[in-house]
Amino acid sequence: MSLKLGVIGTGAIGQDHIRRCMQTLSGARVSAVNDINPDSAAGAVEKYAPAARIVVDPHQLIASDEVDAVLVTSWGPSHEEFVLGAIRVGKYVFCEKPLATTAEGCRRIVEAEMKHGKRLVQVGFMRPYDTGYRALKAVLDSGRIGDPLMLHCAHRNPRVGKNYSTDMAITDTLIHELDVLRWLLNDDYVSAQVVFPRHSPKALPHLRDPQIVLLETAKGTRIDVEIFVNCQYGYDIQCEVVGELGIAKLPEPSAVLLRSQAARSEAILTDWKERFIAAYDVELQDFIGGVCEGRLRGPSSWSGYAAAVAADACVAAQGTGAVVPIKLPAQPGFYA
Amino acid sequence: MSLKLGVIGTGAIGQDHIRRCMQTLSGARVSAVNDINPDSAAGAVEKYAPAARIVVDPHQLIASDEVDAVLVTSWGPSHEEFVLGAIRVGKYVFCEKPLATTAEGCRRIVEAEMKHGKRLVQVGFMRPYDTGYRALKAVLDSGRIGDPLMLHCAHRNPRVGKNYSTDMAITDTLIHELDVLRWLLNDDYVSAQVVFPRHSPKALPHLRDPQIVLLETAKGTRIDVEIFVNCQYGYDIQCEVVGELGIAKLPEPSAVLLRSQAARSEAILTDWKERFIAAYDVELQDFIGGVCEGRLRGPSSWSGYAAAVAADACVAAQGTGAVVPIKLPAQPGFYA
Amino acid sequence: MSLKLGVIGTGAIGQDHIRRCMQTLSGARVSAVNDINPDSAAGAVEKYAPAARIVVDPHQLIASDEVDAVLVTSWGPSHEEFVLGAIRVGKYVFCEKPLATTAEGCRRIVEAEMKHGKRLVQVGFMRPYDTGYRALKAVLDSGRIGDPLMLHCAHRNPRVGKNYSTDMAITDTLIHELDVLRWLLNDDYVSAQVVFPRHSPKALPHLRDPQIVLLETAKGTRIDVEIFVNCQYGYDIQCEVVGELGIAKLPEPSAVLLRSQAARSEAILTDWKERFIAAYDVELQDFIGGVCEGRLRGPSSWSGYAAAVAADACVAAQGTGAVVPIKLPAQPGFYA
Amino acid sequence: MSLKLGVIGTGAIGQDHIRRCMQTLSGARVSAVNDINPDSAAGAVEKYAPAARIVVDPHQLIASDEVDAVLVTSWGPSHEEFVLGAIRVGKYVFCEKPLATTAEGCRRIVEAEMKHGKRLVQVGFMRPYDTGYRALKAVLDSGRIGDPLMLHCAHRNPRVGKNYSTDMAITDTLIHELDVLRWLLNDDYVSAQVVFPRHSPKALPHLRDPQIVLLETAKGTRIDVEIFVNCQYGYDIQCEVVGELGIAKLPEPSAVLLRSQAARSEAILTDWKERFIAAYDVELQDFIGGVCEGRLRGPSSWSGYAAAVAADACVAAQGTGAVVPIKLPAQPGFYA
Repeated sequence: MSLKLGVIGTGAIGQDHIRRCMQTLSGARVSAVNDINPDSAAGAVEKYAPAARIVVDPHQLIASDEVDAVLVTSWGPSHEEFVLGAIRVGKYVFCEKPLATTAEGCRRIVEAEMKHGKRLVQVGFMRPYDTGYRALKAVLDSGRIGDPLMLHCAHRNPRVGKNYSTDMAITDTLIHELDVLRWLLNDDYVSAQVVFPRHSPKALPHLRDPQIVLLETAKGTRIDVEIFVNCQYGYDIQCEVVGELGIAKLPEPSAVLLRSQAARSEAILTDWKERFIAAYDVELQDFIGGVCEGRLRGPSSWSGYAAAVAADACVAAQGTGAVVPIKLPAQPGFYA
Repeated sequence: MSLKLGVIGTGAIGQDHIRRCMQTLSGARVSAVNDINPDSAAGAVEKYAPAARIVVDPHQLIASDEVDAVLVTSWGPSHEEFVLGAIRVGKYVFCEKPLATTAEGCRRIVEAEMKHGKRLVQVGFMRPYDTGYRALKAVLDSGRIGDPLMLHCAHRNPRVGKNYSTDMAITDTLIHELDVLRWLLNDDYVSAQVVFPRHSPKALPHLRDPQIVLLETAKGTRIDVEIFVNCQYGYDIQCEVVGELGIAKLPEPSAVLLRSQAARSEAILTDWKERFIAAYDVELQDFIGGVCEGRLRGPSSWSGYAAAVAADACVAAQGTGAVVPIKLPAQPGFYA
Repeated sequence: MSLKLGVIGTGAIGQDHIRRCMQTLSGARVSAVNDINPDSAAGAVEKYAPAARIVVDPHQLIASDEVDAVLVTSWGPSHEEFVLGAIRVGKYVFCEKPLATTAEGCRRIVEAEMKHGKRLVQVGFMRPYDTGYRALKAVLDSGRIGDPLMLHCAHRNPRVGKNYSTDMAITDTLIHELDVLRWLLNDDYVSAQVVFPRHSPKALPHLRDPQIVLLETAKGTRIDVEIFVNCQYGYDIQCEVVGELGIAKLPEPSAVLLRSQAARSEAILTDWKERFIAAYDVELQDFIGGVCEGRLRGPSSWSGYAAAVAADACVAAQGTGAVVPIKLPAQPGFYA
Repeated sequence: MSLKLGVIGTGAIGQDHIRRCMQTLSGARVSAVNDINPDSAAGAVEKYAPAARIVVDPHQLIASDEVDAVLVTSWGPSHEEFVLGAIRVGKYVFCEKPLATTAEGCRRIVEAEMKHGKRLVQVGFMRPYDTGYRALKAVLDSGRIGDPLMLHCAHRNPRVGKNYSTDMAITDTLIHELDVLRWLLNDDYVSAQVVFPRHSPKALPHLRDPQIVLLETAKGTRIDVEIFVNCQYGYDIQCEVVGELGIAKLPEPSAVLLRSQAARSEAILTDWKERFIAAYDVELQDFIGGVCEGRLRGPSSWSGYAAAVAADACVAAQGTGAVVPIKLPAQPGFYA
């Protein structure tokens, strides 16, 4: 009776989703697994889904009768191909971010899905499933602070590796804000500007860190997002919405209040994986539920496309220092 | 492959557990349902577990081949009979609190289980599964605040119905602290005293509200618990552990920080059902996991017995105002 | 034009008050100084009040034409004598705590003052002048939390010297709560009980630390005060009032919120002298203002007497473990 | 022995300073008072300083033997004249903000003071005297968060009158941040940009509210200041410094923590006059102390000049939307 899932890609996130489906979530099981590296697929199956079949060809997995829906957790550049493949056979597909590595790729998925005539794709943006963001949105939607006028946000990591480049502050880091703030505000971005504060001595020389991204929305709301990926002290996500009547702030993760050594203190997480860990469960459970009911509710391929368009503009703005317009076509009614 | 659960009792908590097993948790399904009221059983089955069989005789349900383990969520006075019934046939059983309505009844279950030779019973105390209490215990166990010397606790409800009586402040309300603090401290109670502050005008005349219960443990730790079930403002659980080096406090549920109308504020829950809602999921998932591995880890029947013995002393202390000793036999190695 | 103050006693607190009058407060100056040790008096005068006269005989100082009002900051056992001396010549007198070392001594001062026919004495209880306690009292008086039913308090010091004895937890430490809570609640104590948690390994063997004092008031309000003078982590004063409609808590001293090293933290003071430092200024300025207007408003000798009576009962309760009644005569209208 | 102050201007702030000198501060008294409206001067004298002389000609007051130092609290456009007058006769002068209504005016004062050869002028910027800002600066100076990289600030008022115009958001409101942040960072501004979020429906149509001012300093630190003068909910000043190792945030004013009506809450001030009320006392006491010691320590005329130059650039940036350079000459050693 349970939904049969085929998983393409058994790296860290892929294995995590397999474990999640088999040990935590309700209503689904992993029936088929593929990875470009067959040993990796075999390891994941042995560890979490002994009854699942290893399928060498990903498109065969997509087409298989043993697969009701597909999870794409492979290498980013392969996402577009597999998502388009799933759409082609009319199967639901959950695709980890990025939906595609270019806005054009996202656009192709949007068009294929619309041509198919029904939403089949959910993108792995998990923040809209976080209880904190949901509580924040509930306050906004309640009207208690009136219409939002400004957002002050921060995305901070303790440190990054040497392969992390200045543009990845947009495409890997800010991308989460680009998605979740759009959802939070029910609004679209119209321009971006990036300013660079003095370089943190803790950041490698090639990386401009921190950065501040200034966004403007169609309704005129102004957003500033501090991106600081060598902040040392913790993984810290901040989001404060200033409305016409008051201010609402994303909850801090709850923590024991300690009084010791001349300080009142609460721990801050240092590992990003823990920050939204519960949201991953809710996200995938919602995908499973959506598939079973035949109606997906999570981030759509349009959301993936919108985030990609905005990210492109932010990267351009990094280069020029000027205000760069963000031109997103009107959202088709199909995605309303 | 999934664990087959038989549920006895389809009141609010029973239905909630059926829904939980069928829609949220992994690895189990409800296969058989019983209620003293067949219509109630039928309604629950229709709503949440259409494939489950309705069994009119609860002992037949316990014995059924279609039932791997039993959930007892019936009327309190029937718990002992059904738990003993499950032990008799050697099946795992999860029993909502109270394990039995008397300490003697709990004792009989302990003895039957020990005679059986293996832990089969988990009691439905959910607080040890709450992430807040777990984080608090982690701080204690880390040694950061040294040995605990004092605990300051509060258990507050906005209001109670007219059937709520003074002793229920112990048997229905304090019972949760009696269980969780014993677990938190890894210690046993040795005495209880109850003092009554001035009567709240918001409490009905027959009910002594608020109350303060003073407990002493074997290690000499002193605990005060304020019980205030007509506090009006919210459902609020407080627990502060004063150690030799510092203080650790149970986290507040996380909430949006609002700045509006001349105040910074965070919402306090008003419905007790929401406060530990996630803990119920973790609790029952842990029972399912424990059954599958053949080793229960949650609150044991000894925990149920210990809480009942302490509760009896507290009720006696309500009557006399004096310090009442709490005499619990040494914990058998069986339950270590 | 400014008020001429004579100071008896030039120890730490005496010098501090001289400095305060000369450098910080408005409307008064120190004109005469006495100490049992003439070198100490000379040092204080040289440092803070070069124009002041050193008077060898304290009673001569009290009687001097150059002294409008007296500050008694000498050794505790001498307070009664000097306060009575000031009353005898009809001069206003500010006396550091204790007003007298026994309740009987306080009583003699009360009687002398009433016989004189006008309030002349202010006792150096500074907490009612603290902005935090004042804000707390304002909330209580506003009715926002209804009538107070319970108070949960703590008085914690990082550590104490080896001369600090178990009874000093009452007479030196709790004495501040005994005064300020009576003022806060506008109520009198009727009984006391003391319970001793396990001994903190950080406390010297002769000292019972921590202690919990349980007080009951005439209106039935129940108060618990944790006294923990080797708490290690800081000087920390807590006071939480549970009312019939809500709870109000003494503000924490304001501090920079720091995010660093995986924690959000705010500093806790470690030196008691800093905690109420501003209150000392307000207290003495109010005495000066009261003298100038001919009407004292601060803690009266009756307050000093009431605190002493309560302290005696608490010390007795330390010894017996039982509930000890607190018998204070009705407050004379003279002190209303 | 006490310092004799002459006050020019007896409006609200002038009267407040007279009261402060006569009733709260130590070491000074108001000996002479002037106002363009003699009745106002007479009223202030009668109310707070009955022994002071009313002087009709302000320059006569400045020159008078009965005046050791001058407080200028008159109408803004007259400040420059009176400050220059005080410098001419070599008297210390405390001037409420603005030091002059133009940067050129400030510059003339700077030059006159340098020509005189000694600091005589203190400008009435009170925030550097606020305990919160001082605590924040102490954290910065301790090195605990490393060098500052970014500042996120807000200056919010509940509402403003109809005479408040868009440029006043800079000259009346932001001016305080322009002064205090320069002091906090020990750095100078090099550019300004202003962005306008959507218009708050609560602001009058002629007023652009809110605004966000983006500043860059010589060291490359980036500052964003939200100015929102119709925020409705309270008077709220925020300042968060992001350093290379951590973050430090200006303390919130301390407030009673209330639990009532399903919320934990702390009051936010609504009247700006209360926010820095204690800082005004410290500021003026420091001026008095500085005069007595012959060495002023508070905000100098150079600070007033620097704030004026930055304000001019911000107003220009409001008009163009572009990044406007801020060109301040190097600070003369005279002011180091």
